[in-house]
Amino acid sequence: MIRAGIIGATGYAGGELVRLLLGHKDVEIKWYGSRSYIEQEYASVYRNLFQIVDDVCRDDNMKELAEQVDVIFTATPQGFLASVLDEELLKKVKVVDLSADYRISDVSVYEQWYQIPHRSPQLIDQAVYGLCEINRDRIRKTRLVANPGCYPTCSILSIWPLLKEGLIDPDTIIIDAKSGTSGAGRGAKVQNLFCEVNENIKAYGVASHRHTPEIEEQLSRAAGRPVILNFTPHLVPMNRGILVTAYASLKEAAGPEGGGSLPSEAQLREVYERYYGKERFVRFLPAGICPETRWVEGSNYVDVNIAVDPRTKRVIMMGAMDNLVKGAAGQAVQNMNLLFGLPEEEGLMMPPLFP
Amino acid sequence: MIRAGIIGATGYAGGELVRLLLGHKDVEIKWYGSRSYIEQEYASVYRNLFQIVDDVCRDDNMKELAEQVDVIFTATPQGFLASVLDEELLKKVKVVDLSADYRISDVSVYEQWYQIPHRSPQLIDQAVYGLCEINRDRIRKTRLVANPGCYPTCSILSIWPLLKEGLIDPDTIIIDAKSGTSGAGRGAKVQNLFCEVNENIKAYGVASHRHTPEIEEQLSRAAGRPVILNFTPHLVPMNRGILVTAYASLKEAAGPEGGGSLPSEAQLREVYERYYGKERFVRFLPAGICPETRWVEGSNYVDVNIAVDPRTKRVIMMGAMDNLVKGAAGQAVQNMNLLFGLPEEEGLMMPPLFP
Amino acid sequence: MIRAGIIGATGYAGGELVRLLLGHKDVEIKWYGSRSYIEQEYASVYRNLFQIVDDVCRDDNMKELAEQVDVIFTATPQGFLASVLDEELLKKVKVVDLSADYRISDVSVYEQWYQIPHRSPQLIDQAVYGLCEINRDRIRKTRLVANPGCYPTCSILSIWPLLKEGLIDPDTIIIDAKSGTSGAGRGAKVQNLFCEVNENIKAYGVASHRHTPEIEEQLSRAAGRPVILNFTPHLVPMNRGILVTAYASLKEAAGPEGGGSLPSEAQLREVYERYYGKERFVRFLPAGICPETRWVEGSNYVDVNIAVDPRTKRVIMMGAMDNLVKGAAGQAVQNMNLLFGLPEEEGLMMPPLFP
Amino acid sequence: MIRAGIIGATGYAGGELVRLLLGHKDVEIKWYGSRSYIEQEYASVYRNLFQIVDDVCRDDNMKELAEQVDVIFTATPQGFLASVLDEELLKKVKVVDLSADYRISDVSVYEQWYQIPHRSPQLIDQAVYGLCEINRDRIRKTRLVANPGCYPTCSILSIWPLLKEGLIDPDTIIIDAKSGTSGAGRGAKVQNLFCEVNENIKAYGVASHRHTPEIEEQLSRAAGRPVILNFTPHLVPMNRGILVTAYASLKEAAGPEGGGSLPSEAQLREVYERYYGKERFVRFLPAGICPETRWVEGSNYVDVNIAVDPRTKRVIMMGAMDNLVKGAAGQAVQNMNLLFGLPEEEGLMMPPLFP
Repeated sequence: MIRAGIIGATGYAGGELVRLLLGHKDVEIKWYGSRSYIEQEYASVYRNLFQIVDDVCRDDNMKELAEQVDVIFTATPQGFLASVLDEELLKKVKVVDLSADYRISDVSVYEQWYQIPHRSPQLIDQAVYGLCEINRDRIRKTRLVANPGCYPTCSILSIWPLLKEGLIDPDTIIIDAKSGTSGAGRGAKVQNLFCEVNENIKAYGVASHRHTPEIEEQLSRAAGRPVILNFTPHLVPMNRGILVTAYASLKEAAGPEGGGSLPSEAQLREVYERYYGKERFVRFLPAGICPETRWVEGSNYVDVNIAVDPRTKRVIMMGAMDNLVKGAAGQAVQNMNLLFGLPEEEGLMMPPLFP
Repeated sequence: MIRAGIIGATGYAGGELVRLLLGHKDVEIKWYGSRSYIEQEYASVYRNLFQIVDDVCRDDNMKELAEQVDVIFTATPQGFLASVLDEELLKKVKVVDLSADYRISDVSVYEQWYQIPHRSPQLIDQAVYGLCEINRDRIRKTRLVANPGCYPTCSILSIWPLLKEGLIDPDTIIIDAKSGTSGAGRGAKVQNLFCEVNENIKAYGVASHRHTPEIEEQLSRAAGRPVILNFTPHLVPMNRGILVTAYASLKEAAGPEGGGSLPSEAQLREVYERYYGKERFVRFLPAGICPETRWVEGSNYVDVNIAVDPRTKRVIMMGAMDNLVKGAAGQAVQNMNLLFGLPEEEGLMMPPLFP
Repeated sequence: MIRAGIIGATGYAGGELVRLLLGHKDVEIKWYGSRSYIEQEYASVYRNLFQIVDDVCRDDNMKELAEQVDVIFTATPQGFLASVLDEELLKKVKVVDLSADYRISDVSVYEQWYQIPHRSPQLIDQAVYGLCEINRDRIRKTRLVANPGCYPTCSILSIWPLLKEGLIDPDTIIIDAKSGTSGAGRGAKVQNLFCEVNENIKAYGVASHRHTPEIEEQLSRAAGRPVILNFTPHLVPMNRGILVTAYASLKEAAGPEGGGSLPSEAQLREVYERYYGKERFVRFLPAGICPETRWVEGSNYVDVNIAVDPRTKRVIMMGAMDNLVKGAAGQAVQNMNLLFGLPEEEGLMMPPLFP
Repeated sequence: MIRAGIIGATGYAGGELVRLLLGHKDVEIKWYGSRSYIEQEYASVYRNLFQIVDDVCRDDNMKELAEQVDVIFTATPQGFLASVLDEELLKKVKVVDLSADYRISDVSVYEQWYQIPHRSPQLIDQAVYGLCEINRDRIRKTRLVANPGCYPTCSILSIWPLLKEGLIDPDTIIIDAKSGTSGAGRGAKVQNLFCEVNENIKAYGVASHRHTPEIEEQLSRAAGRPVILNFTPHLVPMNRGILVTAYASLKEAAGPEGGGSLPSEAQLREVYERYYGKERFVRFLPAGICPETRWVEGSNYVDVNIAVDPRTKRVIMMGAMDNLVKGAAGQAVQNMNLLFGLPEEEGLMMPPLFP
């Protein structure tokens, strides 16, 4: 039985982690950390777990926690884990960090976009970026997983195959993303009140959102050279779900006579089939079917598809997933499974809930 | 392995049944019946099940189906099952009927409220009303379960203990119920379009809704004498969930000197604790906490609580559940478990999904 | 031109008041009071008014305000107005109070339900309860209007005619009410976040909501004797709208031979037609049509209807209105019109917005 | 008094047109055309207009209508108006067409994208594209206005100034648009049911939506040469509102030494100020404020803003409006005002409704 502790268990991602781990046959939650609700019953914060969870919330004592558990999940504000993690802790316990602290390999990029100093830059190298479909083997061998952001997970998985295969121009990538409101967290802010979000859609963080360098770093790996791109998130009046609509220009293959030709949609589809055909959690949809967030709600799936526009010679790459599952807690469990040598899909095979 | 067939697998209740049975370790779905989508892939109707369900939809052939499966679930329009079911079929297969055909013991009451003739009244006596918490033992021995309606399940469980114990006046019961829109079905009707339901609340079927006699029959059993009551359903702009707010006058206990005294809230709470303390799916909440549909979404739980108003000498009895789970598919699975001697909660212990 | 000042202009009711007064041809807003946003542009708080309102928010200086305007609207927390209002101010300016400070004639009832001391009980007698359809003539002559609460407005108008005519039993009244979330205000509270309210319905303030004594006082006037009743509010995932579903037992008329007879639905309808036939803002719907909040959104209308249940001898009285208009700002404008001798409907005749 | 007739008065755009014309002091609606509801009371279809509109719905008799009114609004399926309009009718009556029949100047483009033959191509030349801010003078002189589509209105107004001024590269335009569900119409389709739209976001019509050529034709006018672009609409779970997020590469100005330089954000803002500073219905927002649909609901405003991304040398152009008002009925009224020499904003100055 894997003993798990959660720091930040009363945020939306933390709550989802609890839900998923309760259904995982090899895990026992030993520590519900929540600085805001210390000594209060966890089930009084999330009443869906009444008569299911009996524990109370506890303070963020990493040292004590490291003695009691095998894995710590940190669903905490940026900077928290970097300020408390050290080599000693990592010798005792594995860590899956749902914050951004170890996602960016260049500490100056982190500090510039997050506007806080990084307190343990020496550990960044040890961390593995926990996008399981890409880094599976490296995750199995690490002690510290940087669980990807919600937008980056959906964006990278949607774009990766075509970029990796050199079929799109890396300089033309534009990602227009839409998220449900649980992504904004459970903090009491006027802008996230029901009446402010309902019956509204808006862009935010335009040309400045902190997930941008995370996406760029990973896509640069795929492209084999630096990628900079536009990323625009939007807030949608729904609880869960992220939809990515990404655009890029197709590269023309050099023709025999010098004239170029575009890859056909069939050729592009074959690439996705090859990359994702054996993945349990990435579903490449039939031609002509657009991903929709309703079809993945509550599950760890990412639905992906593409459409080619021969008029503009662009491809539109689309992905849909549940931001709290594959975009946070589900992927964290998937990473934990890899860390402990369990089947990657253990505890994650529940079908999506509809409607 | 229990082989299951579903007639009406593409309605919302049918879809939920598929989701739940896929997660049930002792069941295999052999037949996805849907007259509207014959020969179409089931996963093209419910794309959440892409790469999970490979079958196509099939016609409503009860006879053929009875040869192939151990249990048939019928999530069909009123009158369908009554028109095709007979003794011969019941000898071969067990049936859990999610329609109302066998819920009402008095066929004339059925015909009056449903405005259709009942085609197999001779089978009504065999059917057991599948409210597991009340009829558990009888369900175990039957072949035909009349799975309760969504509103009745929530209403009856909220009111039953006080009525059964003679603590409320049966002539004063008023049930004001609120349902999410999945309860209205998946038929293409203008009144159920997004823009018609969203940003709206309305009562409907006032003093005429067909769940009224079903609730009355069961509560009459509890009271030991005929009960008639008011039942008013409302449509709420949300996908899932039913909330019941029921009112009744408390009975005064005859005092030694002729003066009466009301039972205290503590006394009433003790009754609920006694009735539901050992139930897996009925959660009697702590004092002062109102049931909310968000805390039961996706699960088989019914959350129940009461508040006493000493000013008016009434008790307010409240219940919340997921109309598609405990109100339909979940209870159907619970009934199937009873029918086949499995643990009653098998396949139903997933925690509610929030948010 | 009537010069108006608003204290509490940045709450939802205050914002709606601004919207309505901007469309009122005889009014000019001179003061946008908001302690939370002093010196900030009003249109930076409510960006719908960008390029429409140029003023900045100002502090709550009643004395200065009284010198500059003809009427003050207070959309403030309970207790504020009672603590600053005095005879001197009322000599200079008319006041429409959207808080509860002067709605309850018995100061001890106010203090018991609101749990704060009343700082100017000597002014209560001067205040007129501003339910225009009932108190029209008295409002015209006063200086201080206690603008009714949202739930009370809808509840009282739905029930008033039958109670006033002695057709229902005052001891049997139960009001089950449902409100959109703007009624919960614009304060930053976790419980009002989008993800907490969306996909949920709950009761709150059961047997303890502060609108109860306000409704009881007015209905006692109608009944000619004290009325106590049950009032249960619910929170609905929509922005605007209140729906009231009220229940009462019909009184049997004494028959010639001693046997009683119930009034017919036609007789009851005739009463409503008589009371509301000439009202501009109360629409008594055709038989069989339930009020729905979507049909009144953005307008000052209250839609009312009844259904008789001969089985239980009860009548169900229903009302729907926009909580921010007829339930707050619209009625405040209607009261202002009466105070200043304008046509009652001035600035309020916009049709409801749908969808 | 202008006498107006509406064909297609019971769709969402038709209903909004009724609402707006009822508030227009110079217009009287003489004909509520609706083939689906002939002889039924209009207020039984849109109950918000109970006691406001007394008329019944009438058949689509253009000839009779042309005798009775001064202007006909057609909110009809594509192809309807083209099949009935002729020179004779246009001699008698002015027409504002909310369908697409006369929006595309090249009939072959129309027939290709709409997949229906055009029955009156000879009239296309007479029609003026009714985007008031661009074609104001030409609209004043025509008899036939092609009222722009919802997505095109918002897209064109967001992009026009920079494209017209040659500041962006016409070959790089990508429009990612999001619409509320009223844009999908009031037809009874499963895909538009509440439970299918709620808690979901999806793209649709990717690389194939029929508003694409309409946008391209107008932007080609701005660019002075053919523009082809990507346009991707998305369906958002809200009633009203369109948000456009458009991307384009900034053009570098040739520098004195051959090196290019990008225009600054301030320079770009100055362009928008110049184009829209005097427009009543286009609000260019302060720097850093993203347009949101909630701030324009129920009004004729379009809120526009830009953000420059110096990293990618792209500009993000954003626009938000109410799809039923500026995107349909409001713009139709604005066009009618121009046709009849009224102040362009007559009947359209209501502030947006929030929340």
